[in-house]
This record gives sequence, structure tokens and C-alpha cells, in this order.
Amino acid sequence: MATLKELIEDLVTANRVLATQGIVDSFGHVSIRHPDNPKRYLLSRSRAPERVETGDIMEFTLEGDPVNAEGRKPYLERFIHGAAYEARPDVMAVIHNHSPGVIPYGITGRKMHPVMHMCATIGYEVPVWDQRTKFGDTDLLVTNMAMGRDLAKKLSKGRTCLMRGHGCMVVGKELRATVYTAIYLELNAKLQMQAESMSKKVKFLTKGEAEKVAATTSVANINRAWENWCGKASRPYRHTEG
Amino acid sequence: MATLKELIEDLVTANRVLATQGIVDSFGHVSIRHPDNPKRYLLSRSRAPERVETGDIMEFTLEGDPVNAEGRKPYLERFIHGAAYEARPDVMAVIHNHSPGVIPYGITGRKMHPVMHMCATIGYEVPVWDQRTKFGDTDLLVTNMAMGRDLAKKLSKGRTCLMRGHGCMVVGKELRATVYTAIYLELNAKLQMQAESMSKKVKFLTKGEAEKVAATTSVANINRAWENWCGKASRPYRHTEG
Amino acid sequence: MATLKELIEDLVTANRVLATQGIVDSFGHVSIRHPDNPKRYLLSRSRAPERVETGDIMEFTLEGDPVNAEGRKPYLERFIHGAAYEARPDVMAVIHNHSPGVIPYGITGRKMHPVMHMCATIGYEVPVWDQRTKFGDTDLLVTNMAMGRDLAKKLSKGRTCLMRGHGCMVVGKELRATVYTAIYLELNAKLQMQAESMSKKVKFLTKGEAEKVAATTSVANINRAWENWCGKASRPYRHTEG
Amino acid sequence: MATLKELIEDLVTANRVLATQGIVDSFGHVSIRHPDNPKRYLLSRSRAPERVETGDIMEFTLEGDPVNAEGRKPYLERFIHGAAYEARPDVMAVIHNHSPGVIPYGITGRKMHPVMHMCATIGYEVPVWDQRTKFGDTDLLVTNMAMGRDLAKKLSKGRTCLMRGHGCMVVGKELRATVYTAIYLELNAKLQMQAESMSKKVKFLTKGEAEKVAATTSVANINRAWENWCGKASRPYRHTEG
Repeated sequence: MATLKELIEDLVTANRVLATQGIVDSFGHVSIRHPDNPKRYLLSRSRAPERVETGDIMEFTLEGDPVNAEGRKPYLERFIHGAAYEARPDVMAVIHNHSPGVIPYGITGRKMHPVMHMCATIGYEVPVWDQRTKFGDTDLLVTNMAMGRDLAKKLSKGRTCLMRGHGCMVVGKELRATVYTAIYLELNAKLQMQAESMSKKVKFLTKGEAEKVAATTSVANINRAWENWCGKASRPYRHTEG
Repeated sequence: MATLKELIEDLVTANRVLATQGIVDSFGHVSIRHPDNPKRYLLSRSRAPERVETGDIMEFTLEGDPVNAEGRKPYLERFIHGAAYEARPDVMAVIHNHSPGVIPYGITGRKMHPVMHMCATIGYEVPVWDQRTKFGDTDLLVTNMAMGRDLAKKLSKGRTCLMRGHGCMVVGKELRATVYTAIYLELNAKLQMQAESMSKKVKFLTKGEAEKVAATTSVANINRAWENWCGKASRPYRHTEG
Repeated sequence: MATLKELIEDLVTANRVLATQGIVDSFGHVSIRHPDNPKRYLLSRSRAPERVETGDIMEFTLEGDPVNAEGRKPYLERFIHGAAYEARPDVMAVIHNHSPGVIPYGITGRKMHPVMHMCATIGYEVPVWDQRTKFGDTDLLVTNMAMGRDLAKKLSKGRTCLMRGHGCMVVGKELRATVYTAIYLELNAKLQMQAESMSKKVKFLTKGEAEKVAATTSVANINRAWENWCGKASRPYRHTEG
Repeated sequence: MATLKELIEDLVTANRVLATQGIVDSFGHVSIRHPDNPKRYLLSRSRAPERVETGDIMEFTLEGDPVNAEGRKPYLERFIHGAAYEARPDVMAVIHNHSPGVIPYGITGRKMHPVMHMCATIGYEVPVWDQRTKFGDTDLLVTNMAMGRDLAKKLSKGRTCLMRGHGCMVVGKELRATVYTAIYLELNAKLQMQAESMSKKVKFLTKGEAEKVAATTSVANINRAWENWCGKASRPYRHTEG
């Protein structure tokens, strides 16, 4: 089992990887559920992911109250994370980002489906949450638990949910797998856009294929990518077994 | 309060950030109003933004006359800056650039509107100025105050204005916020193009949403990005409070 | 004649080049037929191409059994390579990759043809293999010889074959030429997509042109690129004569 | 006046700049007319532009015969250069490249026109040469003077000419200005494609505007970019006066 220190190092790496892979720019964030206390999660203070360091990682209650702030300022939108951990006991990591490919799918009514095997973990259909439906005109930020819970409801049992005019959230049972899904969600968006501009009859993965790929995506597979992303983000790679 | 020296360092950083973020190539420029004299502004000598150094920053009257040229050659289009400061006492920083996304919106009659929350500071609708309307066939450069004033008139009370066959101008109440707007104006252009190629019914931010986002975009938010951009441009970050 | 050691260094370089040129991300692989034994091939252990080192190169029988595993874990999809070497005695190198441009051509029914001279080595028309036709719903990975052989059958006598919802395979008579084809297959995909979005009457190379280019693409030509790719991948260049 | 040594250094820099700006990949080339002998030109041996060094620069007669080969192998397509110098006494520099944006304009029948002021030096309309018209099915390379002269005829008095299924040529009265035109030809292609996908009524520069811009593009302007490109290509900048 990984130590808390190792998991925090992984969380810092996840921040850097998401930045170097173009999934977050100066905004967006990634958290893990606390390994020793399922009622808590770990998330950086309010800082651009590419700059996040070990000392930036804070602990929060599921309601978003900092446990050990020590003067550090939290992200306004941390409620996305807490509400997901609250609604989904299986979720151990949460990412919120605004990668460019997902934005058009949030505002056009076009449905996203996996176009290639590596993108199958996004789920067979990606739902879209519109904050305005329940909360009217807002600044589109998820700044309280009511909003976070409404978003988690739309996520339902899936791994991904788009947010209209804002971005998306990605969840998973493990941090590295969640980063993997966020990266291939963005790739799927770009490839689907290209394919749909070429033809009205795009062959998506079948439901059966999507399920089979999701079932066979292994720790070894994800670590092959993780080792590579670590190298590109100049972060040490820690090996884990499936 | 920041010292003049600190503001000049920030202006050099703004040049480098706009270059590393792809908002300017070898052309384009950024200025600030002189902090001690609202009738003056500070702008680099004629040099590519990525190369600009402290010693390149010159002082100009609003009419564009260099106060301390010392052999340095000014940008031909400095009148964009002076005319904006003249027309808009609230404006403290001005950017002129030709980022690729904005060009198509200047020549197609398509209207730009914010597609995501981070782009809301561009304004609900971005006007387009055509130099030819008033000045006929020119080399499209804004080389005198009459042209600069005509452009400032089209900008009106907004933060952004496209220039047909040329680029755009972006203004703001503070340098970093203005850089932020220029960067997300370019992103909005790219995302809106993609979305509009996918659907004729794109859901833009509502007016209410755009206003709320613009109202809540804080110094802390902008500094989160500014720290990150400084890192990417290998420039030191100076913290400021909201 | 190159020594085995030199060929293994070239194979490591091919991995790095394919990564730095954007043809593989963390996945995809490249092999060569063993120079001393046509019934064997050389392929990295299961690792991201950009990370591959000399000590990662394993030897396999054409059926995909590792000859000298020494604890190293092979790629699940090595059968793509073995089946190609088995079916095509002329083939000395095989690449499997998922470069973004080829995906849309695998799922839309659009046919890929060369749009410029440097892309002529992809062949006059690129076939598409759909794993589902023969194997039903799978996880889309080529994990046994039956699948590999079915893919090799679709490849037939050509140099390239797309794989629906997955990627492509590229083969050649020599490693560097095969890397060249994989790189220009991706470029052709991007350029053809742009051209076809602009016009319904795209002028592809004629069959005669495609054949003439393929016939005159020389070792010297390919080495001009190879030297450049080595430089970009920080790998030493070894000169070879045509 | 620049010395021959300085001009050769500039030519090496031009090679590197064209590579770092994405105008050439491993192929393409750039030459200058010999400053002391209008019947000769200077061009690298057959090598990728990003790798070109001072010792690679060879001297050729206009017919393409190497004057001082010393074992160095010339580009097969050097006749593009010689034929342009022969036909156009005003031309002092020639570039041949395959940048991605120009390819679709060579194979779709769409006409390229300047969409922004910086692209006006490409000319009001860019002609397209089809090697097949006169020479039938070839490998599309310009490998003799007859082909080079036919291409130069299509170029006529302009600065740019596309080559169907191949790339383009760019000429100018001075090396740096020619590099500038090649870079903005590529940008124009990308921007025009985007604009034309958004609207059927794109506002190009008027003829009058294009002429005025071309007339006022100064040495100082081009050097602003040249200094920047040198920095990006890690090459020293040599200042010149207009």
C-alpha cells in the first residue's frame, strides 16, 4: 500500500501531468479522497496546477471546510470534489478542467461517444450538466454544496460529465486512471469533431466494445502512460502493481 | 502600491507572456498608462514582444510623441494606445495583437460572443472596426491619432474590439487583467469556431451570466494565471493583493 | 552491413522519433525482423516508446513467444508484428500506432489517398480493417495470432492499413523507410481532411504519380529526414548508404 | 554592404528559422543569388534545413551545376532556384517548401488571397502550377531546368506560386523579406481556410490595400521579426539598415 506521503506526491504529479498534457491551463484542479478517512479529501490550495507543490496540498471535509488551512486559500469550486465523494463511495479521485475539446460538446447539443478504444473509459455517452437549469444566471462557478450535489446527480454512476459553458468533471476509482480518462476525454472530443465534420455516419465503439475496453484497461496499461507523462512533466515515476 | 520600477517589470513580463501564450508573434504591443501622469503612457520601442527588455520601455504623450526617445524608434501604431487612454479615463492598459483566432471573426461578419465563463471578460458582443469605412484603402496600420480615435470610438465602453483584416485591441483597468482578456479572447475565438461548425444553435453565455462572471473575476483569480504565465515565460512573479 | 547492435540502436531511435514526431503517444510500438533469423523479430517490452531503452528490446518468435523475456513483460498486441512478418517475407519493419489523423479515416468510410508527393509511400488507397467483422465485440486489441493474421490479410501487399476505432499499422522493407511512411501517413490524413472540407473535387496524386514517387524515394532522401528526426529526438545519427 | 561571409551566415539562419517556424520539415530549401555574380546562387547541400551549417553551403551555376561540390551532394530540386534567378533578375532569394497550409490550396481549386495586412506580400492572388499539365505523370519533383522554367513562368512577376500536390515557391528581393513572405503565406492559408469555413463572403484585403501594405513593408519591420526568429532559432542577430 502506498503511504500518504507517496499519494500526495502522486497528487502533485497529477497536477503537473494535467498541465503538461494540456488538460488544464492556469485553472482546473484534481483531488484524491483521503486514504485513511473517506470523509476527507486532499486538494491543492488555489494555485495553477503546473505550479502546485507538496506544501500546497490541503485537507478538506466533504462539505469543503479546510481542516488545516494555515493561511492557505482554497479553490472556490472545491465543492465539485466533495459532492462527488459524498455521492459516490467508489470514487477515489476527481478532476475538474476546461480542456478545449470538451467546451463545444457542452454548448451544441452534440453527444459525445467513444471513437477509439483508448477513449472508452469516458463511458458510452457523456452527460451534460447545465448550471442554469436549476440555479438561473450565475457566474457559472460551482461555489457551494447545492451546486456540487446537482452536478454529481447528473454525473450519476458515470466517469465523466460535461458542464455547459464551463468544462467538465472526471471521476475514477484511482488517481492515475482518472488522469488517463481526462486526457483521453479531450482526445475523443477532438477526434469526434473531426470525424463528424467528415461524415454523418460515424462508427462509434459499440456499447459492447466500450464495456470490454473499460473492463480490460489495466493498472499496467495506465502505468505505461503514467511513466511517460511523469517523464514529460519532469516528475519521478513510482511503480505500482495492479 | 507598486513602484514605477515594478510596473515597468510587469510590462516587460506582459510582453513575454503574450508571446509565450501565442497572442502576439513578432508583432503586436502592450502599454500601460503612466501611474503618476494620466496624460502619458509607457510602451516598448519598436521590438518583438518576446525580445522586449526594461531598457526598451519608452514614455509617450497621449498624442504619441516620445518624451524620452534617446534614439529609440517607436512602434508606428502607438496611436492605438494613446487614443484609447484619451477616450477612456478608466483604461489603464492596452494591448494590440493579431492572434490567429480573431482574424476570421474580423472578416466574415460572424459575431463573437463568450462561449465559456473564462471568456466572459471579452464582453457580450465584440464589435468589429473596419479602417476602410472612414479611411479608404490604406496599409491597414493605425498610424495617426485620427485613425486611433476612430478605432476607440468603435471600442466604445467595451474591453475588446476586432479590426478587419488586421487584428484586435483589448483594454482594461489593470495590466494583468488586460492580458487575461487578450488570452481568453483568442481561446473564445477558437472554441466558438469549433462549436459553430458543429451546430447552428450554439448556447453562448447569457447576458446575465457574462455580467456575473465579469463582475466576480478577482485579482486572486487573475494572479493564479499570472503566476503560471510568469513561470512559463521564465519571468519572476510579483504578488499583488486584490 | 549494420551490426545487430546498430540495428537495436536504430530501433530505440525509431521509438523516440515516433514519439517526438507525434505518431505515438504513450502507446503504439515498432519492431524489426531479426537480421539473422527471419523467424524472429525484435520489439520493446511493454513501455511507452519515448521511454524505450536498449535493454528493453526483446526477441520474439513470429507467434509472439518471447525468446529471452528475463522478467520483461511484452506488449499485448505484439501479434500485429508477428503476423505481418509471417505473411510478408518482404517486410522488415512494422509500426502500430494511433496517430490522431488516421482515426477519423477509420470510422467514417472516407477513403485515404495521397495528397502530396511525400505521402505517396502510403499507397494509392489505404484499406480499413474492422476487427468486429470477424471477431464481434472485443476490447479492440489484437491479442492473438488469429486477429493478427486477419489484419495482415487486409493489409495485403500494401504498406499501410487503418484499424477501425483503434489506429493503423505500417510496414516496410526497412526501418527508417517505415517510420517515414508512418509520419507522412499522419500528415496526409490531416491535409486530406482540410482539403476535403474545402472542396468535393480534391486532386489526389494520380496512380502513376504515386507509383513514380514511391519508386524514386531513395535511402538518401529518407536519411535526410532521419538525420533531422534524430536531432530532434536527441539521438545520434548513423549514416547508411542506399 | 554585407560581406559574403555574413550573407552565408544569414542563409544558414534562414534555414533554421524556416524550420523552427514550421515552414519546412526535413525537406524544402532556401537560396540566395550570389552577391558578386548574378549568374550564380548559394544553396545548402542536400540536408534538412534545421541541420544546415556554414560548411554545407554550395555554389551553383543558374543551370544547377555545382561550382565547388567537394563531394557534397546537391538537392535534386535545385532547378527551382536557378530557373527563378534566370527568369527574374529582380529576385535575390528563393524558398521552396511544403508547409501544410499551402497543400490544400494547391489541390482544391480554391484561390488564395490575403486575409490580413501581414500577409499582403504574398500578392493579391496566388497562382497554382501543375507539373502534370506539361510533364504528365512524374514523381512531382522539379529535377531539371525545363521543369524549373515552366514553374518560373507560372510564378510570372509575383512573389509566390503554389505547386499542385507538392508545395510552393516564394521569391523576393532580399533573403529576410522572402522568409517573411513564406511564413505569412502559411499563416494566410490557415486563416483563410478557417474564414472560408465560416462564411462564403470573406472580406479579403482589397487590391489597393494589398498594394499599399506591400509597398510600406520596411526593412525595419522585417528585422523586428527577424530578430525574434533568430532568438527562437538560437542564432545570432545581425542588424541591417533599410
